[in-house]
Amino acid sequence: MTIPNIASYIDYTLLKPAATARDIDALCKTAARAGFAAVCVNGIWVERATEALHDTTVSVATVVGFPLGADPVAVKVAETEDLVRRGADEIDMVISIGHLVAGDIDYVANEVRNVVHAAKGHVVKTILETAALDNVQIEAGVRAARAGGAQFVKTSTGFHPKGGATREVVALLSKFAGPAIGVKASGGIKDLETARHMIAAGATRIGTSTDLTEFGS
Amino acid sequence: MTIPNIASYIDYTLLKPAATARDIDALCKTAARAGFAAVCVNGIWVERATEALHDTTVSVATVVGFPLGADPVAVKVAETEDLVRRGADEIDMVISIGHLVAGDIDYVANEVRNVVHAAKGHVVKTILETAALDNVQIEAGVRAARAGGAQFVKTSTGFHPKGGATREVVALLSKFAGPAIGVKASGGIKDLETARHMIAAGATRIGTSTDLTEFGS
Repeated sequence: MTIPNIASYIDYTLLKPAATARDIDALCKTAARAGFAAVCVNGIWVERATEALHDTTVSVATVVGFPLGADPVAVKVAETEDLVRRGADEIDMVISIGHLVAGDIDYVANEVRNVVHAAKGHVVKTILETAALDNVQIEAGVRAARAGGAQFVKTSTGFHPKGGATREVVALLSKFAGPAIGVKASGGIKDLETARHMIAAGATRIGTSTDLTEFGS
Repeated sequence: MTIPNIASYIDYTLLKPAATARDIDALCKTAARAGFAAVCVNGIWVERATEALHDTTVSVATVVGFPLGADPVAVKVAETEDLVRRGADEIDMVISIGHLVAGDIDYVANEVRNVVHAAKGHVVKTILETAALDNVQIEAGVRAARAGGAQFVKTSTGFHPKGGATREVVALLSKFAGPAIGVKASGGIKDLETARHMIAAGATRIGTSTDLTEFGS
């Protein structure tokens, strides 16, 4: 499968806790040169990334409730408001995995709705952490994300010991999501070949932290 | 080494993102029966744990900026305020590891100071994530924690791929901390023998998620 302009699918990601300002600058430089969709950085770096990318087409995505998703709704809302104020264009939030596992879909839909409201029109991606879920839970998670008004469902944080995106799970998300919302594949995507497979399976955005200039070609 | 009443050292911990209300209830029940110092749970479960433990001596500890530590200070402050309002007795906060690695000790001391202020007199433990640090950075981290007014330094989140507490690092923390503040050893402590070694090395609190009723003896 040939993907025209694959760079436009890429959220170029650096979420390691020991990342420094210098690492963030390098990330932004690569993203700008390659014409990636976005960088994805921790909240502490949003202002720096926004400044570095202000005259480019690269968006700044950041994370909320990351990577455990186990903050109260009010905390996720306060975090979202703060990060949007700092210039974040996109919010990748982790849902409450425990509530989804326990079948409390209303709880999850409600927290998504509150974060979407706090994001004031900016793109919200809901991270389901699919490695922790069975297929019934994944379908319920997509339902909650749609009910809450999110623009994307996203497979993984990249921090779960059981791994990240698979082609199968991306295809499943794509089926449940329908054409209404996007699908972001993330976690363990380390080469162009894998990225292409994810897009073929239905991904409309790819998260990767691998420094592959080939994504820019 | 014999440790009298080792139970009083234990922060009985459940931070897995897929934990459910039922898991939290079981955690609290065990902690109450054993007479542990505290349970340590994600923010979403603070109210439930506080209610379950209200007529016991077990404190409720929770986490801030966890486990990456890469939230802006304002977000850590808002999170702390929210969790104290929900009933948290103790706040285990992760410092900005990237700033510590880059040598910006003032930044770290300032965020600790702000969280300590937001905690309104409740115990604050600063998690350094020592597996990501060299000894010079660890000493600087302890200095920042002390300057910021924290009551404890704590080794690890338990989520870092390079591991958690070691006897060597606990001894080092204990040396740098002096008698002024406590040392919490956490991450990978799975048996009573290891807990005893940590206490001998200078730990005054032990975080463990292993269900060991032997800790209660």
